[in-house]
Amino acid sequence: MNAVNHQFKLAARPVGMLKPSDWSYGEEPVGEPGDGEVLVKILYVSLDPAMRGWVNDARSYIPPVGIGEVMRALAAGEVIASNHPEISVGDHVTGLLGVQEYAVAHGAALLKVDTSLVALPVYLSTLGMPGMTAYFGLLDIGRPKEGDMVVVSGAAGAVGGVVGQIAKIKGATVIGIAGGPDKCRYVVEELGFDAAIDYKAHDLDVALGEHCSKGIDVYFDNVGGEILDAALARLSRYARVIICGAISQYNATGALSGPSNYLSLLVNHASMTGFVVTDYGDRYAEGATEMGAWLASGKLKSREHIVEGLETFPDTLQQLFSGENTGKLVLKLAGD
Amino acid sequence: MNAVNHQFKLAARPVGMLKPSDWSYGEEPVGEPGDGEVLVKILYVSLDPAMRGWVNDARSYIPPVGIGEVMRALAAGEVIASNHPEISVGDHVTGLLGVQEYAVAHGAALLKVDTSLVALPVYLSTLGMPGMTAYFGLLDIGRPKEGDMVVVSGAAGAVGGVVGQIAKIKGATVIGIAGGPDKCRYVVEELGFDAAIDYKAHDLDVALGEHCSKGIDVYFDNVGGEILDAALARLSRYARVIICGAISQYNATGALSGPSNYLSLLVNHASMTGFVVTDYGDRYAEGATEMGAWLASGKLKSREHIVEGLETFPDTLQQLFSGENTGKLVLKLAGD
Repeated sequence: MNAVNHQFKLAARPVGMLKPSDWSYGEEPVGEPGDGEVLVKILYVSLDPAMRGWVNDARSYIPPVGIGEVMRALAAGEVIASNHPEISVGDHVTGLLGVQEYAVAHGAALLKVDTSLVALPVYLSTLGMPGMTAYFGLLDIGRPKEGDMVVVSGAAGAVGGVVGQIAKIKGATVIGIAGGPDKCRYVVEELGFDAAIDYKAHDLDVALGEHCSKGIDVYFDNVGGEILDAALARLSRYARVIICGAISQYNATGALSGPSNYLSLLVNHASMTGFVVTDYGDRYAEGATEMGAWLASGKLKSREHIVEGLETFPDTLQQLFSGENTGKLVLKLAGD
Repeated sequence: MNAVNHQFKLAARPVGMLKPSDWSYGEEPVGEPGDGEVLVKILYVSLDPAMRGWVNDARSYIPPVGIGEVMRALAAGEVIASNHPEISVGDHVTGLLGVQEYAVAHGAALLKVDTSLVALPVYLSTLGMPGMTAYFGLLDIGRPKEGDMVVVSGAAGAVGGVVGQIAKIKGATVIGIAGGPDKCRYVVEELGFDAAIDYKAHDLDVALGEHCSKGIDVYFDNVGGEILDAALARLSRYARVIICGAISQYNATGALSGPSNYLSLLVNHASMTGFVVTDYGDRYAEGATEMGAWLASGKLKSREHIVEGLETFPDTLQQLFSGENTGKLVLKLAGD
């Protein structure tokens, strides 16, 4: 096979906001799968806030991407050659395949998915990492009960939208926090949240006080910063705060801004617990089964924000941090 | 009875560090107990970091002390008149009796204590609020297991000293953080901690890295600020952080300094949970029984730092915030 594999590699250790010169775009011959490996033609690349953390040279839950390495990314594609007994040519798979057109991976590192049930990008979205993040973070750490007040930030994002919908399924009242009237309308009208607060247009302290006059029982945080502080100030007794992300802080060059209202945990006997989705790696099937049934019955809606063209990667990734996407941001590769 | 009752009242709403003009020292006739009430001659007044919070005009777990009111304090004394069927003259009691020489209180608001078992000040210390704080915070929230690495700040204080001793009883390795060589020596030599770090003399990040190379499983925080941040940076997987207090922050006039390393919770699936001891009010007997047995068997040591003279109250309270006390700070009243 003489095809060319276009790729984005990490060219420099980013400082602050990502910039085009942090990446190098190049090509190399498509690899040959070895024993137990398969060759995947990538159709969709998932763009996730976690990617900002993966390029920092810091101790974390996963080693940093090295300079000169293909940028790490979850992706979905079609198997075009296989030396693995359980994976066939034509199968659709997802995995950490990187920002490139073709990837060679061991079959054991891939997940076969069934595109007769839902479209392939949904396996990068509600039935993929963001959906699992929402499902386990909310249900295992947040433990919402019927009648609870659940607040989620980044509500129009890939994780937040699923969090709010699952909280509604569990009988909670759900308030989303998002930036801009379009996202707020989407969250209420399309996803069925009880209300949404446009933090760019309203004083969040006042708005949370109005919507959550009895306090917040579960707060699912994707953003950190001032929004986290505003939510902490409104906790109810025994509230659970889930620290899923801090997208407002990921491009900070100085010290992170810590939540100055953290003593609200003390007076309310509340807890703040963090996690990464891989902590639940051995329970994904459970999440996929339940969310798959909710998708099939229409209780749960999945929305992907699809941008075409591998070459747009640096600009498209930037949309996550400028808050342009509604739903799961996915890069669709131009190749047919 | 014509005796005079000397008292400290709150004269002004304190801003930042407490100062003498925040208090007024005065006298009034000793009160008469009504139906169900008793008159207590106060022998010891407990001085606690929480008192700084009680004089702030802010929503909290307990209403603020009003201007012109006797300063709220836990205290221990002897009953000298009783209109309550279950309390007799000569009984020793503890309760929220205030910074004064005599108090009238309803019998139901008092706890009778047995001074044949331990001395009266111990009921303000290890068998009182600080001991219960240590016991329930560590065991209910921290849940140390045998072999765990437990770190406690304010280790030479009333709460921290008990936390470390209980953690040792439970089979953990215990590192205390305290200010100055005397406190560090006390914590290791008298209380039996495995080691102590003098945060005034050493780089805490480095010292924690040396003592806790495998990470901190349980961190009991009494101080907040930079010490909390240093501990967060060293958490192990599934670590539990107990937010008991933040004495470094109580006199802040601006916004509190939040823990900028809070995303360590995320990468470590760790939790940070706050509480106040009254959350466990219905379980004090359980704590008193177990700690009483440990005291009797010598497994647990109680140390009180006793200062004499009601009139020293403003200065003596200040010792808490300047870190002068080792063990539980108690004011002994001059009256015989």
